[in-house]
Amino acid sequence: MQSGRLSDSGPAEPGPRLRSLCGADQAAWASSLSEAEAEAGCFALAVAAVLPAGGSGERMGVPTPKQFCPILERPLISYTLQALERVCWIKDIVVAVTGENMEAMKGIIQRYQHKRISLVEAGVTRHRSIFNGLKALAEDQPNSRLSKPEVVIIHDAVRPFVEEDVLFQVVTAAKEYGCSDHDLEFGTECLHLALKYCHIKAKLVEGSPDLWKVTYKRDLYAAESIIKERISQQICVVMDTKEDEEHVGHRLEEMLKNELNHMKKVTSGKDLQQILLEQCYSFVCVNVMTSDFEETHKLLNMLEESNLSILYPVVVISVHFLDYKSVPFGQTMENLMPIREFAKEVKKRNILLYGLLIYYPQDEQKLKESLRQGATIIAALIKERNSGLTGQLLIA
Amino acid sequence: MQSGRLSDSGPAEPGPRLRSLCGADQAAWASSLSEAEAEAGCFALAVAAVLPAGGSGERMGVPTPKQFCPILERPLISYTLQALERVCWIKDIVVAVTGENMEAMKGIIQRYQHKRISLVEAGVTRHRSIFNGLKALAEDQPNSRLSKPEVVIIHDAVRPFVEEDVLFQVVTAAKEYGCSDHDLEFGTECLHLALKYCHIKAKLVEGSPDLWKVTYKRDLYAAESIIKERISQQICVVMDTKEDEEHVGHRLEEMLKNELNHMKKVTSGKDLQQILLEQCYSFVCVNVMTSDFEETHKLLNMLEESNLSILYPVVVISVHFLDYKSVPFGQTMENLMPIREFAKEVKKRNILLYGLLIYYPQDEQKLKESLRQGATIIAALIKERNSGLTGQLLIA
Repeated sequence: MQSGRLSDSGPAEPGPRLRSLCGADQAAWASSLSEAEAEAGCFALAVAAVLPAGGSGERMGVPTPKQFCPILERPLISYTLQALERVCWIKDIVVAVTGENMEAMKGIIQRYQHKRISLVEAGVTRHRSIFNGLKALAEDQPNSRLSKPEVVIIHDAVRPFVEEDVLFQVVTAAKEYGCSDHDLEFGTECLHLALKYCHIKAKLVEGSPDLWKVTYKRDLYAAESIIKERISQQICVVMDTKEDEEHVGHRLEEMLKNELNHMKKVTSGKDLQQILLEQCYSFVCVNVMTSDFEETHKLLNMLEESNLSILYPVVVISVHFLDYKSVPFGQTMENLMPIREFAKEVKKRNILLYGLLIYYPQDEQKLKESLRQGATIIAALIKERNSGLTGQLLIA
Repeated sequence: MQSGRLSDSGPAEPGPRLRSLCGADQAAWASSLSEAEAEAGCFALAVAAVLPAGGSGERMGVPTPKQFCPILERPLISYTLQALERVCWIKDIVVAVTGENMEAMKGIIQRYQHKRISLVEAGVTRHRSIFNGLKALAEDQPNSRLSKPEVVIIHDAVRPFVEEDVLFQVVTAAKEYGCSDHDLEFGTECLHLALKYCHIKAKLVEGSPDLWKVTYKRDLYAAESIIKERISQQICVVMDTKEDEEHVGHRLEEMLKNELNHMKKVTSGKDLQQILLEQCYSFVCVNVMTSDFEETHKLLNMLEESNLSILYPVVVISVHFLDYKSVPFGQTMENLMPIREFAKEVKKRNILLYGLLIYYPQDEQKLKESLRQGATIIAALIKERNSGLTGQLLIA
């Protein structure tokens, strides 16, 4: 299928005098105006990105266009923007959305605090949307905050897992391979365009399997699982540092290290500010006294002050130990019930708080079993990030 | 890449005189020996299936070959076998596995009670494996329980979501299109073979997007989510039928109907035997007295007698109501603790038992809120089927 000529859509435009660069399935092709120019180092180049995001998502089998489908309650396109934003040398990101989704898109940018984003109206085809994005970058409007780029990366809004190294390769390739911008008028796939005009140099850049495009509903499921797995890699165990090393909290930490998948990193929360900077999204908070939430409150306050939970749900498991002999079980449970209210409160800020009461029997073998079960429950809560179970008090 | 000639692997064989039929990506091609024969109705034909399952799963990035990767703790290939077994007109299913996986495969067949399966040793390539499967079907060995088929469906072991209608189309197409069996000697993709020999009629049979092949780790995630979703479509609410219609259990059932995704079917467990036959894998069991497990025990016994949990984990949520005024909370919690032991017991048989205690305040608004939260927790437990949280007593 061919898109219509862009000149149909308005007064004849010379088209943006930009080097353009497209990513297709696990591949990208790159162009530049001249080889001499291309020899300049790519980071001397001003780089921008254009995201066509005007699709209707018919193949997905859901009414919402796929770029706006939620993953952990955040729209897919926000993950893609986040992936591009992370790359400091991409100066501007232009997103082309349909008029009807313009306000929703503004809301997404505001809510998830995306930076360096500009919006343009999508065209009726993917190529017209790309053209509109390039035009916005090319225009020298006095009020525009956009700076004219030398290389533009065209990236699908529904490929959230793009990595900096692939983008780097694409921009590097742009120094050597070329295609004039009028090619935007025809075709649906960028590489197809490059091959059609045989005098044009095109280069395939190898992508990783993670670069895949979210197309079907199953891809949304896969994306959600991948994201959950990524944010569960690091688990931080927080406890009062004055606590003696023999304390059962340290034993729980050891048990977590042994029980969990070896891929996961269990860190002690001694330097919590540093850990927040490392973007750890899973916390186990050991409270010394049975019915005490002191450590948990301190942690929740720090989390609320940081902006950590804007992008991903943060799991906090408030751990308490039960010495059955000194306090009756029922009493302990009642004392810990306030966790339900705390959980309701912090859930508003995307923090998922759960309680975990671990039996502390005198018998060494039984204690070991309790700690092992505690570690299993912790792993399950962190892995699933189930918002329907927040405020629950689980028992190991 | 071409596979070696099959004749290299042993004494010259005429090759099986079978009509063969291959499924490639969302497509299949079909062959028959003659048009006259093909005009016979396809269910007058004896149909068998061959599953090449000798792959090493290198693209998956995991040490286990992908066909043996677990989904909800059951190997992927078992789901594929289940999909083929369901089709009553497939008389025999021949699986080609490597020698080293032969015993594991026998264990899978036994554990998941697969029927009509025969095993052959895989060859070094996919095509040699297919050849070995066809040979086993073609041979007239006195001790063989295999009957010689007229049409053979070749199906990837890693496409678990194949539906009967696609298989039907494939077999129907086999009546009209043909290819001689020596084509098995070359090529890696069946359709490629058909196109290579232009005098051969080949037909593309449209598959659904669900027919996709599990290739990468993300596909395993997607498959797990799809399977979880499928087995969570129907939720059966069981309660004592003598119970009056105004009982809070009925209100919970109504709340579930309202709160849950409209895709889900909430059925009352009046005819439990029928519901077990319908393969419902999610049960909410309402116990009349607070600390009573009577209904739950009855249901668990029925589930254990049926073989329902052999293929999928069955979720049972034992619901209890708490009238805070008549029995103290702590006491109720203690009374319900035996659920931990019950859960441990039934988990051995793949039944995931959770407890749910719902507050029953006098205030109508508060009761509604409790029931709504109960429905949310039920939905979360059924959706996730988290085996790490069995035996927990959740509170709404």
